[in-house]
Amino acid sequence: MDLSEYHINEEDKMKLLQEKVLADGIAINENILKVDSFINHQVEPELMKLIGEDFAEHFKDKGITKVATIESSGIAPALMTAAALQVPLLVLKKSPSKVLNENMYQTIVTSYTKGTSYELTLAGHLISEEDHVLIIDDFLANGEAATGAIRLIRKAHATIAGIGILIEKSFQPGRAKLEEQGFYVYSQVRIKKMDKGVIELIP
Amino acid sequence: MDLSEYHINEEDKMKLLQEKVLADGIAINENILKVDSFINHQVEPELMKLIGEDFAEHFKDKGITKVATIESSGIAPALMTAAALQVPLLVLKKSPSKVLNENMYQTIVTSYTKGTSYELTLAGHLISEEDHVLIIDDFLANGEAATGAIRLIRKAHATIAGIGILIEKSFQPGRAKLEEQGFYVYSQVRIKKMDKGVIELIP
Repeated sequence: MDLSEYHINEEDKMKLLQEKVLADGIAINENILKVDSFINHQVEPELMKLIGEDFAEHFKDKGITKVATIESSGIAPALMTAAALQVPLLVLKKSPSKVLNENMYQTIVTSYTKGTSYELTLAGHLISEEDHVLIIDDFLANGEAATGAIRLIRKAHATIAGIGILIEKSFQPGRAKLEEQGFYVYSQVRIKKMDKGVIELIP
Repeated sequence: MDLSEYHINEEDKMKLLQEKVLADGIAINENILKVDSFINHQVEPELMKLIGEDFAEHFKDKGITKVATIESSGIAPALMTAAALQVPLLVLKKSPSKVLNENMYQTIVTSYTKGTSYELTLAGHLISEEDHVLIIDDFLANGEAATGAIRLIRKAHATIAGIGILIEKSFQPGRAKLEEQGFYVYSQVRIKKMDKGVIELIP
């Protein structure tokens, strides 16, 4: 898909990623969607810029002071969101570095789908209770990663200003779990259901 | 450091990261430099944009078709470099995903400093022998990561157009190893030596 064929205005930005997922996303089965040609493995900078501008437009009145994401697939869209909002980006690290070791917030995230756990860390000197944080992530399925990020940011007594997701698997319980806790979730693409070769979006 | 105090022209972009490292980098000892407040853990989008523009300016005549980096600290500057060059970014993954499994290039990278190994992977359908690839990474020390990236990209018979580094520890052998193999290395910051509280750059 050539982005130059699009006349990009605010409404179109929201739809751009939807059309990209339908054109270039590959549903392997009812749970696995490959987006490695434009989000995860190969990244299209112009698409990320438009995604970032859409998130920035959507959350511009929330007083955001920082954008946060979990390494590593969320970094590209989160960086472009932070650039559009003109605030810093916090990268929540999946394992503690030897260099970062004092005054660290830490939490364990367990992915039941993948059967794996990892430690998520955030250096205390990079966040304060004054911060209003927008969490950006590439996928929302069961909400384990987002919930871990929330837990970590709350340890610093900062405010979660919202959660921005590129692709939500709406047939899984992530959104409901986050909304039950009172968080606002904005997903650019919501997948109603999918299966080998078929992707159906919530319009 | 407030970026707005800078009058940014081409010469200044090169110096910006140098001044940032001197102002906000923290040398822990003669080997460890903390840059987590502006590169690794908290990322300043405006700084990354200027870093990307400087790499793009430097490599603009090399016919670059793709930028590549190793997840995850290199993603932010590499994305901004790819954006400035208007080419896609390839993120070399540190472990094979369950989703990406056919037609994969793989290589093992061993970090002797850290005493760890990881598998670096690149999906074959994202690269071809026509590609001219600019490798961007945050640090160059012993050159193990860059050498791994080169090995992987060469498996696809693509051309290495150059290597762009944010911070080079010039007292370690990485640059020499890469130059011996015939690669051109451009580092925005070159550290001559450092120790607790002291950082000395190569001007």
